Amino acid sequence: MTTMTNRQWLLSRRPEGAVKPDDFRLEGGPVPVPDDGDVLVRTLYFGYDASQRIWLTENGGYMKPIGIGEPMRCMGIGQVVESRLPGYAPGDLVEGFLAWQDYVIARADGPMPLRKLPNSSYPVSWNLGIFGVGGLTAYFGVVEGLKVRAGDTVVISAATGATGYVAGAIAKILGAKKVIGIAGGPEKCRWVIEKAGFDACIDYKSDDIGARLQELAPEGVNAYFDNVGGPMLETLLYAMAPLGRVLICGAMSTGYTDAFKDPGPKNYMLICTKQLTMQGILLFFHADRIPQGAQQLGQWVAEGKLPVFEHVVDGFEHAPALLPTLFSGKEPGKLLLKVADPQ
Amino acid sequence: MTTMTNRQWLLSRRPEGAVKPDDFRLEGGPVPVPDDGDVLVRTLYFGYDASQRIWLTENGGYMKPIGIGEPMRCMGIGQVVESRLPGYAPGDLVEGFLAWQDYVIARADGPMPLRKLPNSSYPVSWNLGIFGVGGLTAYFGVVEGLKVRAGDTVVISAATGATGYVAGAIAKILGAKKVIGIAGGPEKCRWVIEKAGFDACIDYKSDDIGARLQELAPEGVNAYFDNVGGPMLETLLYAMAPLGRVLICGAMSTGYTDAFKDPGPKNYMLICTKQLTMQGILLFFHADRIPQGAQQLGQWVAEGKLPVFEHVVDGFEHAPALLPTLFSGKEPGKLLLKVADPQ
Repeated sequence: MTTMTNRQWLLSRRPEGAVKPDDFRLEGGPVPVPDDGDVLVRTLYFGYDASQRIWLTENGGYMKPIGIGEPMRCMGIGQVVESRLPGYAPGDLVEGFLAWQDYVIARADGPMPLRKLPNSSYPVSWNLGIFGVGGLTAYFGVVEGLKVRAGDTVVISAATGATGYVAGAIAKILGAKKVIGIAGGPEKCRWVIEKAGFDACIDYKSDDIGARLQELAPEGVNAYFDNVGGPMLETLLYAMAPLGRVLICGAMSTGYTDAFKDPGPKNYMLICTKQLTMQGILLFFHADRIPQGAQQLGQWVAEGKLPVFEHVVDGFEHAPALLPTLFSGKEPGKLLLKVADPQ
Repeated sequence: MTTMTNRQWLLSRRPEGAVKPDDFRLEGGPVPVPDDGDVLVRTLYFGYDASQRIWLTENGGYMKPIGIGEPMRCMGIGQVVESRLPGYAPGDLVEGFLAWQDYVIARADGPMPLRKLPNSSYPVSWNLGIFGVGGLTAYFGVVEGLKVRAGDTVVISAATGATGYVAGAIAKILGAKKVIGIAGGPEKCRWVIEKAGFDACIDYKSDDIGARLQELAPEGVNAYFDNVGGPMLETLLYAMAPLGRVLICGAMSTGYTDAFKDPGPKNYMLICTKQLTMQGILLFFHADRIPQGAQQLGQWVAEGKLPVFEHVVDGFEHAPALLPTLFSGKEPGKLLLKVADPQ
């Protein structure tokens, strides 16, 4: 058997604080050989998700933490090279848990089974963004978690993110009276209104968020899509209307450097006295209905109601350097690395 | 007009930390005169609720804080002496927001309107306990908040309390597989099992709660009725099963001395990664359905499925001294002060 080169980005040390490119090292190895039930996938796109930072902590929480010397896990798109799994054939495009490698062994089991991608006229990368974790989390989060309905005032933090901007657009589609984003800096806030179609945007770097919410939502916030946590979550708990709904989707303010040790909201007893509902969202729990969610999102995109924004960088070598930029969030929309073209 | 004596317990200073009897002072005054829309009520029973401690903080939160020199507010039962409100007549028994006074002016509006009590064969005091705030909060909390269903493993903290023990009994009625209480000391734990009918009880004073939960609920907790907050809430978040439900009803561990400044659960991001639902309960939001809830509770009591426990102390003069004992929680069930007999 020919030994092809399989480049791999391995975790060289456990990051402390913000993740740094040299927490990883590049190695090469043979292309792995699939076992029964496996497919061998050639990687095409790596998606960047905040949850990757959680997987890098020792207490990885909801997934096995990535060990020192192991390849970095990611959601990605690839093409089947060899299949020992019924239903998957060479040439098929797939999306799911892959890794920062040229070739990855993938399986169809686990909490988020490898998904065979439909033939489509849209770019294949969209399956990692608008039809991937970001878009689908926004979909199930807004529709089923927050249950946004006509007349609601909705607030979305990290509103330029791959999840945040989609959540806002879906809230508008569902008839929300006012959708307010929170983002950092005037340029991003302008983007949130002009490109993503929100009604207003609060600049957390210069505005008093509580005061702005009183102006923009004097009767209180009915639904808050929280991607940020920290003091911003406390401010929002004060701003919620009675019986309001809060979706816990992320905690970008913490950088996820010490998962599950974040300070909880000091005023959480407002959940009691305003009878709020605070619900989490993890796409795992909606895995069986991902095709249904993706279909609805696709229809909204086709109807021009849901814009698609992605920021694609090219080149396998940039995989580690791109991860910290997810948290600085300079580019709106989904952050992706393209590593190869389909064949 | 004759001036009758109207004894009143007034707030003499804002309590710091635990409430003390001498935070109140006894005064006498004339019986107030009802205005249009008012009823003059002679008080019979004062109920004791943890929320009274919240009303005593400057930042009273969900109700106007009680001012220095003002009478202490309570949920209570009284008898109408004079009515200038249609539908209420002298002699009627009523329940609602009263105060530590012999005579109180009450109104039918507000978040919890004065409730006219039905003629009944059971003791009138039950309208403050099993058919009052405690029982009704347990009812709406377990049925609508936690949505307890057959097969659930349910945990209830402060399980000897007027709300806690009822919540456990209702969870059993709804078919919960296992109902686990948390209480302080072996005597209370025995009471929770033998008198209140729970399946098990964890002694927070001597047990490792997390370890005991792993033994008692190895597949995780489906529903947690939280009356305690603090570190116990964090322990429960770790113990929750995926998709579990948490009801935020109280935070007894804090003593409510500094409302809405309690440390929130540090591991609240487990709400996201286990897709938990954390919901509050405040009876205000169910006020229109209180008769319906009370009727269902009454049926369960009549069928012998729901036990009634109350601890009644006699004598107006004990009103302030009884309040701190609510937090030490020596006596299981509803804590009441009887101040007069109906006429």
